Amino acid sequence: MRLSQQQLEQFDRDGYLFFPGLFTPEETRNLNDAVPELYNRREAYNVREKGSDAVRTNFAAHMYSEPFARLARHPRMIEPVEDLFGEKLYMHQFKINGKMAFEGDVWQWHQDYGTWLNDDLMPTERAMNVAIFLDEVNDYNGPLMFIPGSHKKGVVEARHDLTTTSYPLWTVDNELIGKLVERAGGKQGGIVAPKGPAGSMILFHSCLVHASSSNISPWNRVSVYLSLCAVSNHIRRHKRPEYIAHRDFTPIECLPDDCLLKDYPVDLPWKNGLPASALQTSLDELKLAA
Amino acid sequence: MRLSQQQLEQFDRDGYLFFPGLFTPEETRNLNDAVPELYNRREAYNVREKGSDAVRTNFAAHMYSEPFARLARHPRMIEPVEDLFGEKLYMHQFKINGKMAFEGDVWQWHQDYGTWLNDDLMPTERAMNVAIFLDEVNDYNGPLMFIPGSHKKGVVEARHDLTTTSYPLWTVDNELIGKLVERAGGKQGGIVAPKGPAGSMILFHSCLVHASSSNISPWNRVSVYLSLCAVSNHIRRHKRPEYIAHRDFTPIECLPDDCLLKDYPVDLPWKNGLPASALQTSLDELKLAA
Repeated sequence: MRLSQQQLEQFDRDGYLFFPGLFTPEETRNLNDAVPELYNRREAYNVREKGSDAVRTNFAAHMYSEPFARLARHPRMIEPVEDLFGEKLYMHQFKINGKMAFEGDVWQWHQDYGTWLNDDLMPTERAMNVAIFLDEVNDYNGPLMFIPGSHKKGVVEARHDLTTTSYPLWTVDNELIGKLVERAGGKQGGIVAPKGPAGSMILFHSCLVHASSSNISPWNRVSVYLSLCAVSNHIRRHKRPEYIAHRDFTPIECLPDDCLLKDYPVDLPWKNGLPASALQTSLDELKLAA
Repeated sequence: MRLSQQQLEQFDRDGYLFFPGLFTPEETRNLNDAVPELYNRREAYNVREKGSDAVRTNFAAHMYSEPFARLARHPRMIEPVEDLFGEKLYMHQFKINGKMAFEGDVWQWHQDYGTWLNDDLMPTERAMNVAIFLDEVNDYNGPLMFIPGSHKKGVVEARHDLTTTSYPLWTVDNELIGKLVERAGGKQGGIVAPKGPAGSMILFHSCLVHASSSNISPWNRVSVYLSLCAVSNHIRRHKRPEYIAHRDFTPIECLPDDCLLKDYPVDLPWKNGLPASALQTSLDELKLAA
């Protein structure tokens, strides 16, 4: 899959591209079926909602789950991003966000790159966010919302919100959100929320300001959110555990296009549990070869 | 304003009727302009959001604010409900719900009549909920959601939720919500959320199951929610303060249709503050004249 000139211009202008139904129901079924067992695990990589047992986010499933390890190497996702950046990619972060029926809490307005810069010392914005819907996303189950064009502002001011939800987040001030939404068209298009069937994919810029509301509908809204970083742009610090910000900068090699339908062999380095090293963190900047 | 046969059938089937833009922008402006001063008051009738100074709901403004006292007597709202019940009405409850930009919290799935029966000993369901939008309601600012037809179930089981938000509510169990939504069409119409400009009105059955999500958009979603009870169906107990469940069963006399544009005189019994009696409560059943 290659991006057209029109898509490239649209991405530059709006900060995102939406591909409804990019993966078929057959392709997403194995992924979705694998989620409950992953969510049941009592491991550091499962973050639960505040005051609830529902999983808010699961980290690094591509390191210990076959279906997700295959998704992480899917050419329909990897190739267009390689095209955009003009180089090979590594997996910076891999999450399966629950946003479970009745329980899914908000994700406040934020940018991702701000965190990667501040915490991980990622040099530039050359990392792409990818969302893949494992459930239908509709009006009622807390769709992801974007402020189109907000990526053009670069990294905006943010404060570390440690209390609103169970997961600390660098969130953008309300007043600035109001201004960005007005600038993007106010009530006419200042916020957009792509909706579609399971298997849909969104590519969005790492500086695009986004959020999602709570899910009080009876429908789960499980989505994979991952970040593909240009290899030359790898992080320079391991302040966060490895299951949150990965440290293996080896370029991703794609599997064939039918890799969600056939059991191609994949490496699962954390199959037998998180290594102790994955929990070690450091405030030191990496020493790079000259 | 009179309801057509088609509207009566629709109300019976779905449990609600939506009137987009029933009041003009000129008519709602005075109402909306009066809200900030009312919300600023440090009074028992202003309930604030959990952990925030934003007002979640203001009670009984028709007792101390001229514009809202006029709205409470508006024939475009009162007459169709009189038609439906075939008798005069009194005001059982009057709220201005904030659902303020960035701060508005969820209202969990619930029915209203269950509370009125259990707390207030209201004999039957002959009380109508009315929602009037003072701000535009859109996809992003936490629209009211209904499960069409759920009023046909009568009063369903509920539990008193004292912790989720700042306002205790009798909420319906998740499993039952799932079933009601499936029965109403699942992802094809099992939940509906009327959206429209300021001045829109919804009439909805007191047994209709409803909820609304949080509002993390930059747009307030202030709405008046009031309950018009058939006079013969008045409550039989004053377990809740009078500003929440009114005790004056005098039939409402309508003002002229232009009452939101002209300063018709209205009585404001609580203009100088809540009387002490309004805070008195009792578990005794009212003794009625034989």
